[in-house]
Amino acid sequence: MVDQILAGGATSVVNLVIHALVMGALVKLLLGMAGRGSGAPEFMRYTVVIVTTGSVLFAAHFAEILLWAYTYAAVGAAPPGTDLVYFAFSNYTTLGYGDILPVDHWRLLAPMTALNGIMLIGWSTALIFAFLRRTVPQLEKH
Amino acid sequence: MVDQILAGGATSVVNLVIHALVMGALVKLLLGMAGRGSGAPEFMRYTVVIVTTGSVLFAAHFAEILLWAYTYAAVGAAPPGTDLVYFAFSNYTTLGYGDILPVDHWRLLAPMTALNGIMLIGWSTALIFAFLRRTVPQLEKH
Amino acid sequence: MVDQILAGGATSVVNLVIHALVMGALVKLLLGMAGRGSGAPEFMRYTVVIVTTGSVLFAAHFAEILLWAYTYAAVGAAPPGTDLVYFAFSNYTTLGYGDILPVDHWRLLAPMTALNGIMLIGWSTALIFAFLRRTVPQLEKH
Amino acid sequence: MVDQILAGGATSVVNLVIHALVMGALVKLLLGMAGRGSGAPEFMRYTVVIVTTGSVLFAAHFAEILLWAYTYAAVGAAPPGTDLVYFAFSNYTTLGYGDILPVDHWRLLAPMTALNGIMLIGWSTALIFAFLRRTVPQLEKH
Repeated sequence: MVDQILAGGATSVVNLVIHALVMGALVKLLLGMAGRGSGAPEFMRYTVVIVTTGSVLFAAHFAEILLWAYTYAAVGAAPPGTDLVYFAFSNYTTLGYGDILPVDHWRLLAPMTALNGIMLIGWSTALIFAFLRRTVPQLEKH
Repeated sequence: MVDQILAGGATSVVNLVIHALVMGALVKLLLGMAGRGSGAPEFMRYTVVIVTTGSVLFAAHFAEILLWAYTYAAVGAAPPGTDLVYFAFSNYTTLGYGDILPVDHWRLLAPMTALNGIMLIGWSTALIFAFLRRTVPQLEKH
Repeated sequence: MVDQILAGGATSVVNLVIHALVMGALVKLLLGMAGRGSGAPEFMRYTVVIVTTGSVLFAAHFAEILLWAYTYAAVGAAPPGTDLVYFAFSNYTTLGYGDILPVDHWRLLAPMTALNGIMLIGWSTALIFAFLRRTVPQLEKH
Repeated sequence: MVDQILAGGATSVVNLVIHALVMGALVKLLLGMAGRGSGAPEFMRYTVVIVTTGSVLFAAHFAEILLWAYTYAAVGAAPPGTDLVYFAFSNYTTLGYGDILPVDHWRLLAPMTALNGIMLIGWSTALIFAFLRRTVPQLEKH
């Protein structure tokens, strides 16, 4: 079980760092845009923020899923011939059809991918909400 | 893989914009109601807020699920005869029974729907919580 | 499809109201306890808050799941002989083994249960976090 | 049904207490590090915070999953020979392939594990986000 925890734990931690860096970059990017675009109508800025944030975060999640697929390939976590990106993506989102099952020795990697995925997707959701909240001051108490 | 990412990414971004617009409209709607209904007992306002917010957000999620079903139909992501609304709804909520599987060439659309769904549902949850928090001042520190 | 949306939408809205009422009651209960127990050591109060909040919210989720099971029974959403509480609970948490499938005409009730469940569970999580945050002032900026 | 609720409810509450204690310990640990490492570059502190938080929370989730596996073993919730850690981990993350099913008499333990897992993972996500928010002051309004 230790080898599964090491492989899955390392992948999880790298993904956390990726997401933290992307979050930092997004904050800088959006602040730069806020400075320049302050003359644009509110609806436009709102849309630009959501499309930018959504696209960058989607790219981050996709990179994290590719890292899981790479880990699966490196240790042989799925039967030969498996579409590893689809398998990793399905685990990451906890879809879990059961059409592909991990091999017995590495089966813990599947729920570890799910744990990592839920946390990172929840993090993205919190980030999008925090950005939009700034543009909807009525949501704040003060 | 690029065609899957383009189709799923476009659907995801449109849904993010839909949800952002609905959030903006809800804030305006509830502020209007708060102004008029300030004489009503607290329990009534509480219930009106939750029922309004819940119904509007449910309608938004349903529209987003229909857009996924439309994308599935446009590219042929599921076997002929599939109930696409049910398939899209099950993916969007990550239910994932495995009773319907996507066709091989478009299989990434299923977890992309799940990623989009988790984020939008999480966003709705944060919004409901933010609205109710305003009516429960004890939850705030200041 | 309209009958499914009406049955599922009504159940969802009633559950939102249940959860809002339980949240209001919990806030009052915990404030009362905070007033009386202020002489107790911090660790004790911390544990009492988490056990009380967790138990009350679990009871609320269970009541909401029973309401879904009742709706399933009323419309005949699952094959005869199905353990409806287990089926509703599995849908509500998006577990989705696929060992039980809804009948065709009412199949949308399953992902509607999932949508309702994710939102209410996320709400509970936000509430527990908000309560504990008050006892961990270092998490706050000010 | 009462025995299932007692066994699952007790496990859930103990896990809530574990997570609350780990959250308290993490806050103290990170404050200690913040005091000592204030001369280090921002990128380093950022990475240390995320890696520490992620690793400690992962360990907490793993301990909670082991407790569920222990409960499954104590009552015989899965068929003999089942890999209980994998089964508990898959339920906790709501992966739900359906490759392992609980025995009929204890089947509610599976969605109870899922309910407990979603809440605790959501809690961890909120905690990571709260820690990082402190290092990204632009996310705050004031």
